[in-house]
This record gives sequence, C-alpha cells and structure tokens, in this order.
Amino acid sequence: MNVQNSGHGPVIREMRITPIAITDPPLLNAAGLHAPYALRTIVELETADGIVGVSEIPGNESTDEALRLAEHIVVGKDVYQLGRLQQELEVRFGKDTSKDRGDAPWDQRRLVHVFSALEVACLDIIGKLVNRPVADLLGGRMRDAVPFAAYLFFKYEGAGGKLGFSVDPNAIGWAAARQQQAIDPEGIVAQARAMCEAYGFQSIKLKGGAFAPDIEVACMHALHQEFGEAMPLRFDPNAIWKPETGLKYGREMESILEYLEDPVRGQENMAWLRQKLRTPLATNMCTTSFDEIPASIALGSEDIILSDHHFWGGLRASMELARLCTTFGRQLSMHSNSHLGISLAAMVHLGAALPHLPYALDTHYPWQSEEIIAGGPLKFQDGEVPVPAGPGLGVDLDRDALARLHQQYLDCGLKMRNDEIEMQKIHPKWTFKKTRW
Amino acid sequence: MNVQNSGHGPVIREMRITPIAITDPPLLNAAGLHAPYALRTIVELETADGIVGVSEIPGNESTDEALRLAEHIVVGKDVYQLGRLQQELEVRFGKDTSKDRGDAPWDQRRLVHVFSALEVACLDIIGKLVNRPVADLLGGRMRDAVPFAAYLFFKYEGAGGKLGFSVDPNAIGWAAARQQQAIDPEGIVAQARAMCEAYGFQSIKLKGGAFAPDIEVACMHALHQEFGEAMPLRFDPNAIWKPETGLKYGREMESILEYLEDPVRGQENMAWLRQKLRTPLATNMCTTSFDEIPASIALGSEDIILSDHHFWGGLRASMELARLCTTFGRQLSMHSNSHLGISLAAMVHLGAALPHLPYALDTHYPWQSEEIIAGGPLKFQDGEVPVPAGPGLGVDLDRDALARLHQQYLDCGLKMRNDEIEMQKIHPKWTFKKTRW
Ligand SMILES: [Mg+2]
Ligand SMILES: [Mg+2]
Repeated sequence: MNVQNSGHGPVIREMRITPIAITDPPLLNAAGLHAPYALRTIVELETADGIVGVSEIPGNESTDEALRLAEHIVVGKDVYQLGRLQQELEVRFGKDTSKDRGDAPWDQRRLVHVFSALEVACLDIIGKLVNRPVADLLGGRMRDAVPFAAYLFFKYEGAGGKLGFSVDPNAIGWAAARQQQAIDPEGIVAQARAMCEAYGFQSIKLKGGAFAPDIEVACMHALHQEFGEAMPLRFDPNAIWKPETGLKYGREMESILEYLEDPVRGQENMAWLRQKLRTPLATNMCTTSFDEIPASIALGSEDIILSDHHFWGGLRASMELARLCTTFGRQLSMHSNSHLGISLAAMVHLGAALPHLPYALDTHYPWQSEEIIAGGPLKFQDGEVPVPAGPGLGVDLDRDALARLHQQYLDCGLKMRNDEIEMQKIHPKWTFKKTRW
Repeated sequence: MNVQNSGHGPVIREMRITPIAITDPPLLNAAGLHAPYALRTIVELETADGIVGVSEIPGNESTDEALRLAEHIVVGKDVYQLGRLQQELEVRFGKDTSKDRGDAPWDQRRLVHVFSALEVACLDIIGKLVNRPVADLLGGRMRDAVPFAAYLFFKYEGAGGKLGFSVDPNAIGWAAARQQQAIDPEGIVAQARAMCEAYGFQSIKLKGGAFAPDIEVACMHALHQEFGEAMPLRFDPNAIWKPETGLKYGREMESILEYLEDPVRGQENMAWLRQKLRTPLATNMCTTSFDEIPASIALGSEDIILSDHHFWGGLRASMELARLCTTFGRQLSMHSNSHLGISLAAMVHLGAALPHLPYALDTHYPWQSEEIIAGGPLKFQDGEVPVPAGPGLGVDLDRDALARLHQQYLDCGLKMRNDEIEMQKIHPKWTFKKTRW
C-alpha cells in the first residue's frame, strides 16, 4: 500500500533549513558559560500551494545535517501524515542512544529535534489551512494565556565588561539589567526585581550549579526574603550536587521552594532524595525521554517532568506525555533553552492545550534581545503570554532578521553549544564535572 | 477568562440522542446470553452552520440520561474545544468508580462513553469542515485498510429455533450460518469457515467462558486442525477460569495461540499466569482504564491491551494509550461489542492512525444484519476494512433506518444489557459467576 501518496491534501514541496546565531548574555550554569551567541535552527516547510509553516529548534551542526538527510522523506509528504513521517524518520535515523544526554543542560539527540521541527511546521501549515490556532489542533485551548516564570541566572557582566558580550547597546529597562553582573544574593535579587517588573512574572526560578551551594542557597533565601511567601520559588543546580548535598541544602530550602529541580544526578539519586524531602522534585535531566519513563515510574524519581517539545518529539508527543503524567500521578511543566519567538509560540500553544498546568513554565526569552518574528518579541502580560491570534502558530517570519541572524551564524563560527569551552576562555583550567559539590 | 466563547469556529447548536435496538443472534458468553436485541445509542451533533457529526456508543438508559444531562455543556461549544469539554464533563459527572467494571464483557461507566460519543462526533464535524478523514486528525493514516479477526461465538440456533430470535429471514451465505447452532467443535469450525469465506478474515478469535474448558479448548484445537499453523488463533473465556484452570488449559493451547485473552480474573491472577505461560496475554477486563494502568505496569498483568475507544474516552485518548503501551513494551489492539457501522468506521480511522498495529482487531460486525449507515454495511476485503473515503468518519446516517431501529428500541422494551436475565429465560436457575471453572 502506498500510503505516502494516498493523501489528498497539501503536499510539502520544499524544506528550508536556516541555522542562526543570536546574541546571548554570559549566563553561568553547571556546564560552564553561555557563549556570546546561542544557536537555533529555523525550519520552513512550504506546500505546493505556497503555504509556509515554520519551527525553531536548538541549533547544532549535526541536527542541521540530519534535517538535510531527512529532506527526501519530508518533501512530497502530505502535512497530515505525521505518524508516517515519524516512522520513516525512525527508520532513517534509528533510536537515539546518545549516552551523554542528561550530562548537559541541553540535548544532543537528533531524532527528537528533527521530528519536533517537522511536526511543528506541519501543524503551523495545518492551522493556516483550516484557519485555527495550533492549540486547537491539540484539543483546544484550556486557557487563553500561559504563565511563565522569571528565569534567573548567575552571570558575568555584559557589554562594557571584560567579556564584551554583544548585548543590545541600546538596551533600556530590563534589558539594561541583562548587562549587569549577578554573582551573589544582591545581584540575583536585583535581577529578579528588574525581570519581574518588566514581565510581571508570578514565579521565580534560579539556575544554580555555578557556585558553591551555600552561596546559591543564600540567593534563594534572599529571594524569599525579598518577594515573600506568595512568590513561588524554584532552584535548579543541574544535577551537580552529591546526594548528601542535595539532602542538606534541600532541607535548608524546604520551607521556601515550590519545587526543587534536578538537585542530584540520575533517577536513583533523585528517587532516594525524593523519599527524604517534602519539597516536590522536578526534572529535565533524569527523565528526558519516553524510554526513561519505565525506570522513572519504577523508581519514583520525580514529581514533575519538565517537558520540552524540542526534546520529546513535538507537540502531540507532549500531549501524550501529559496523559502519561496524569496516569502516574506526575505533573507536567516545561523546560527551556535560549530561544526566540517561534519556539515560544509553540510552547504557548502547547501550554494552552494541556489539560493541567499547575506550574508556570520556564523560558529564557527575556534574555534574548534579537527576534526573527515580524512585529518583534511576543508580549507578556502579568507574566503570561496570550495565545497568539491568527491561524497556526500565529507568528510570521521576519525574513530580513532571518538573513541577518544567519549571517551572524556564519560569522560567529560556532557550530554547536559547548559551555565548557566558553568557560575556559575565562578560567582556562575549568572543566565540567558531573558532580562538583 | 471565558475560554468557551473565545473560539472562532463552528459552534454546536444541537445534540440529538437516539437509542436504537438492533437484532442480535443468541450468542453465549461467560455472562450469559445475548438478548434478541443489542442496544446502541446514536449521537448527532449539529453546528450552527448545519454540519452534522455522528457517533455510536453502547446503549444504556443511564448513558442516554448522562448524555441528556450533558447537553447544556455541549451546546454552544466550539467543536475544537475537546479538552475543555472533557474537563467540564469530569466536573459534571465525577470520576467513574463503578465497582463492577470488569465483571461483565461490557462497560457501564458513564463518563468514558459520554466523552467518546461527543469526541467522535466532533471529530466527524472537524473532518467535514477541513475535508479530511478522521484518521488524518489523529496523525494521518499509517495504513489504508485495517485488519479484523473472525469473532466466533458459541450460540444457540436462530430463526426457526426455540429462541425465535429475529435474525434476517432472508439471510443467505454467511448470514445463514448466523442462524445455526454452534455449541461444539463441529459447529464452531463450520461457523469459522462460513465467516472467513464471507469476510476473508486472516485471524480467528473464539469467545469462550460458556462451556466447560475441555469443550472450549477442544474447539480451539479443532480450529487449529482445520486452518493450520498460518492462521493466528485467540481464545477469550472472559476471566471465568480459576488460576489453575488458566494454567492447565493455557498450557494445552500454548502451541496454537497467538494470544490468550483474559483467561483469569484480575491483574494479580493475570500477572501470576503470565509468568508461567509463553503465550502472550491480552485483556479488556483487567486493565480497562487509565486509572488501572499503574497497577498493570507494577504487576505486569498483560502483554496486549485491547482498547476500545468507547471505554477509554475517545479516539485521541486511544492514541495516548498507544503511546503509553509503546513506552511500557505493551501492544495495543481493539475490543468490540455488538455494533454498527458508525462505531466500525471510528475503529477503522483509529486503527489506520495507530503507529503500530500488530494484531487484527476484534469486531462483532458480521453478527449484525441491520445497519444505520447509508449504502449498507461497510465492506471487508480480505478481512480488512478500507478507511472510508470522504471527510470525517466517511459514513452518512440513513435516517429511515435510524427511525426504524429507534422504534424497535421502543418496542423491544430493553433498557440496558443484561445477559444473565436472557440466559435465565432458557435456563431459569442459571446465575452469573465471576469464576466458574
Ligand atoms: Mg533544569
Ligand atoms: Mg475480551
């Protein structure tokens, strides 16, 4: 049976893959330091009728290469044939067995990224064809706006500082705070104040793992002091703590945290710590794929899975993950990496459609000063992003910006993310350690 | 936020609920005897623009009542607002906690039936709106036709026999076999031959639990003898066997079965037996809802879940169940009750969209001689049903037939299925036993 040609709908005529680089502040995490540029890849699918769907995924030379290798599978497909597309991609690329998934705050698996890129672009096209937002293709919106959390980072100083990071020289307001150093409680509280004032966030997360636990935990207590009981706080040391460190500092934060994210490494350690703390544990590092779900359930490694449609294979897979979480008494929220408005729009449509959304989602969006969607960055209202009006994702590509950021990609010379190398430019002997404290 | 009115799409103006009765042969099972009529409920949703979506669910007075109680939730809803619809139905009807689910071969829970009825009709409307088959709304078709199994039953004689069941008096071919008695290996083999010749089935299932195990197991060996190694065989005694009976007869059939369905009652007994048999175990009785999945996973109670979109809350929920099965190394296939072409069409669209379909699905369809879809029963080709052409479910309601079968419902006086009462009309002292042999 030739299913591929049995569709009577819009067929994909062309796929365009455009790697871009966006300026990024010198944010610190357990894996090192953000480079001056974060990489993203923009995928456009165009139907024979000229309808264009877009998507955005984390940038990586090998992902781009995989997308190019998938072109013959994609071109000629009916945009509704998502199951078939996934099956053929699985045959082409095989199971991802990358052993280092979970070591870094990002994900180097190929298939999930490729399928996410293609699925989101297809859903954007379908939405445009039927004149409905992507959220409606996922079961309809449960809410009209999706809440996000302030995502704080320890960081070095920006423009004018020793790193000379190319943050927006015209920055004002919150953007100005993007340039300030934040390596202690005072700096973190100032960052939180500036970000919450600019975006109206109602929850705050600090990315830790950069400094010794007592410094970072002091920052959490300073945030609690500053914002009070009503502000939900989360802390994420990216699994760099030993189990006994997780226990000690987990207990020190037990009264002030909404949840504790990846305090320790691996499902076994998470499960051990979860038995000892009252604070819910969240993860985007110990349970990162459907393959890891059975062990997560058997061990009881977390309360909250921070999904990411780029890493879990798309928006429909994320809805399936939501059912799975509900079935097993887990909650679902969302992880983020540095991203632009196309990824944000996809996250918002998914967030709008999820049956349950008990926690504000993560986003790096405030840290970015560049954008590729027409009309500039999506707006936040009281920490929420309204579901974009208009069909599909509801965002349009700014082709001039795309060309400029692609040139920036070519000029900057980065091909994949490596925060260790960036850190070594500042501290030559620094090396990544899976467990540091 | 008033989400309900934020949709800009087709709004449901009217819901029509029509209980029908269809003539049914005197089929035997562990719970007793099929009544002369099987009950179904036909649901029609009509949009403000006059687009009608249809669905079919098992008939039961209390389900019809629940549908009527849901009318104010349904009318005014945008057909894309499926998540919102489900949420409001959950609030209205609460969790189903029916304790007797699993006792009988049918399901008396309300919420799953109601939501299935509404979801399938909404998907039918959406498919008509966007001019795509329902399969495409579930991820696109993985196959153009869906395989089914011959579903054999022990049965008493039909028209002309002592029951005087109103099977089609003009029946010829397979339909004639519908009237013959089948209570021994010879009768079962004749039934299998007639059904396979008429429909081209490539797999055979026998519903047991009606007679002592040695008679029923002899029938399976007779089928194996008749059809040979190449014909996959399944046997389903509806959980009426004791564990040691399951072990004894499971071993006797180990070399001839593709799978063994609900040999024993409950997840614990199934898990115990599964450790002892090489034959895969299937269920539609011990794991029947998402709520029962965690224990199923913890115990390892089955290899194959026989889902049923009427019982699992619709087609999208079934796709989510498929992901769950894949995640935990289980297979998914489908259960059936007596049904007509609307249910069959929905099963075919789902079966076409499922990523994996290793087993032919169950269907009672050959046992029915009446139909409510225009153009008569859906056709089988080599045991498969092609995905109906045309948008939505691809079937149209025959309004004359609907009116006639509704009158038959009013005339027959049945309000819910009860195979025990039917059996007692023949054998007055017969009572249902959860475990008989
Ligand atoms: Mg994290
Ligand atoms: Mg069964």
